[in-house]
Amino acid sequence: MEKVTEKIVAGIITIGDELLIGQVVDTNSAWMAQELNKIGVWVQHRVAVGDAWADIWDALQQEEQRSQIILITGGLGPTADDITKPLLNEYFGGKMVVDEGALANVRHIFERVLQRPMIERNLAQAEVPDVCTVILNKRGTAPGMWFEKDGRIFISMPGVPHEMKGMMTDYILPALQEHFKLPFIAHRTLLTAGIGESFLAEHIKAFETALPPYIKLAYLPNYGMVRLRLTIRGEEQSSLNKELQQQFDHLKQLVAEWMVIDEDLSLHEAVGKMLKQRGRTVGTAESCTGGYIAHLLTSIAGSSAYFKGGVVSYANEVKQNLLQVDAATLSEAGAVSEETVRQMAQHILPLVDTDYAIAVSGIMGPDGGSPEKPVGTVWIAVGNRQKIEAQKFSFRFDRQRNIELTATNALNLLRKFILSDS
Amino acid sequence: MEKVTEKIVAGIITIGDELLIGQVVDTNSAWMAQELNKIGVWVQHRVAVGDAWADIWDALQQEEQRSQIILITGGLGPTADDITKPLLNEYFGGKMVVDEGALANVRHIFERVLQRPMIERNLAQAEVPDVCTVILNKRGTAPGMWFEKDGRIFISMPGVPHEMKGMMTDYILPALQEHFKLPFIAHRTLLTAGIGESFLAEHIKAFETALPPYIKLAYLPNYGMVRLRLTIRGEEQSSLNKELQQQFDHLKQLVAEWMVIDEDLSLHEAVGKMLKQRGRTVGTAESCTGGYIAHLLTSIAGSSAYFKGGVVSYANEVKQNLLQVDAATLSEAGAVSEETVRQMAQHILPLVDTDYAIAVSGIMGPDGGSPEKPVGTVWIAVGNRQKIEAQKFSFRFDRQRNIELTATNALNLLRKFILSDS
Repeated sequence: MEKVTEKIVAGIITIGDELLIGQVVDTNSAWMAQELNKIGVWVQHRVAVGDAWADIWDALQQEEQRSQIILITGGLGPTADDITKPLLNEYFGGKMVVDEGALANVRHIFERVLQRPMIERNLAQAEVPDVCTVILNKRGTAPGMWFEKDGRIFISMPGVPHEMKGMMTDYILPALQEHFKLPFIAHRTLLTAGIGESFLAEHIKAFETALPPYIKLAYLPNYGMVRLRLTIRGEEQSSLNKELQQQFDHLKQLVAEWMVIDEDLSLHEAVGKMLKQRGRTVGTAESCTGGYIAHLLTSIAGSSAYFKGGVVSYANEVKQNLLQVDAATLSEAGAVSEETVRQMAQHILPLVDTDYAIAVSGIMGPDGGSPEKPVGTVWIAVGNRQKIEAQKFSFRFDRQRNIELTATNALNLLRKFILSDS
Repeated sequence: MEKVTEKIVAGIITIGDELLIGQVVDTNSAWMAQELNKIGVWVQHRVAVGDAWADIWDALQQEEQRSQIILITGGLGPTADDITKPLLNEYFGGKMVVDEGALANVRHIFERVLQRPMIERNLAQAEVPDVCTVILNKRGTAPGMWFEKDGRIFISMPGVPHEMKGMMTDYILPALQEHFKLPFIAHRTLLTAGIGESFLAEHIKAFETALPPYIKLAYLPNYGMVRLRLTIRGEEQSSLNKELQQQFDHLKQLVAEWMVIDEDLSLHEAVGKMLKQRGRTVGTAESCTGGYIAHLLTSIAGSSAYFKGGVVSYANEVKQNLLQVDAATLSEAGAVSEETVRQMAQHILPLVDTDYAIAVSGIMGPDGGSPEKPVGTVWIAVGNRQKIEAQKFSFRFDRQRNIELTATNALNLLRKFILSDS
């Protein structure tokens, strides 16, 4: 194997006023960074600029100083505010020509996929600077463009996430791997729940301090959970893999008490995996989360193997009629009570015929709180036909966060229940 | 009123390797940009850098050239990879001192909120450069910091979204409004469905061309819908408001056929608003979306006024047992069929006792497709006790996108049904 001599650094430029005005959350950059990272490219800088000629030009010039690979998304649409293509044409000193492949693709998409007539400005999407290599967009009409200048690669893609992802996967990532000699990079990630970031850091201080300089530890906190990621970078793949595994095993021992899973999975993926491995199923009875737990479980491909269904009992009469919660329980203990979630869990089991059940009821806010049951009060029950366990939580703050925290804690309680049940 | 003479420009710097490695999606920047925009501050540039001293320093120097306001998030945690605070201390030539207010806040949060003992590195969070104004963090232990240098404002905040949002709302936005004379800026947004971006652009070409230079039209496409946003900027609030209203009314007429709502609301918010205004309720019977439609409806505060509940019938036996879909229908027409979704819609109505119902069943992928029913095949039914309407859709691509598109189209069908029913 040839010696790898340089660290390949990438920069990402996202273009569009919608990013600066905050009407769109940029999910593309995170995905691109992840994929680049996997092939050993280090993203050092990310910048978002509006649909303004000078700002885009400026960003290109600056990124060119920093990075060998410059990925650009956005501004390729058919409307007047999309100026990326003429700008790149001028930046690289080309002239606009019709690309036959891109033209055929535009025609194909309109005739076969969208099944509607094409108009002039759609045809213009097949025009590209003659100084680029055209990247086929199988999922849309705007072609991608690959430019090379002074040893640097500039790649322009549409901002539509699935179009960008298709191009990256089908063409750009393999082409970059061919073009550069990339260093070896590897990550190992584990997920913890039930311990704060600072306590965790204190607990593994000696481990962290003793790490060699080419292994980095990162803390990634999110909704009451903390992911720990070890990253190794270097040349000798096999020895590095071995060393990373040793350090990761050590770290796992240190945090065993709080570890949910030793993979880079979210909690709902981890729970799904546990159920699948055991051939067990789960059903949900959700009040305050309004279907969010079922959504998390079913967002994973193949989840029909372990998720059968659930009831969203937002109104009390649905708790009573569909889930058979006692009218007396609802009027005396209330909808947010241990008794109610116990009954919800108990009764969803036969309704959807599963091995396990999750039930939640709480006050998500901003309204609906009282002195006895303030916003953030949540009861969660998990169990099977033999045993139901219930626990009370007191969250705070905003509705969206409370929904997230309720789902997270419910899934974590189920995880612990399954472990103790196996 | 004094004359406003300058356009106030802000830059956002987000700090953290997790942003560059792609393990976290940056939702903070969009929120900050939105809020700044509302008070007339223009975000011109956004940049993400890792936990590296030189990169952060460089970003500060560059943003300083461009912007009067520099907002910085991240890198303030208690762990070793958090270097923002010492860096800012050096950048502004201060020395670290304990801030009594921040210290009291750290103590309060540990004693009252977290109810666990404090450790040394938590106390260190109360140390700040003596050259900044401390911003109280009511929701966490890391204080915010406000620096001024050569007429520019630098504000450092934690990266935890709800902590950042609390500081912005309680302190930073009002303080910026006091500090600068801000221009007047206003937006009007409408939502369309069922027409592509390029057709829309063609349809309103003359309108767009005739807009004065201080009014800007933006196209914001998302999952089969396009939002149109008019932005006006200037000095004279009342005349600008009037002019914006006139242009917006004109635009509304032009796109009336496809307009969902003339506010900056998402489709599920618009549907919720319609139901609330009419005093009607809805229930859901979801197969392929697995609770996502119920989640969208209940993500809005106050949704209990119009959403009562639903069933997630992921497995066929749940469709049969809980939703009483005919066994013969399931075995002959199949789970993804017009007959099945019609029965699901019809039977959920009495179960949750609502005025309207939504039912969906489809193949989200990546597995489960067949030549007759490829991945992306979806049946949607909406209706009330008098009438059920069903429609077939053929989406493509990935699972997450298919779930989104199914939810969007189901909500849009319900919207049209409600309109025709009123």
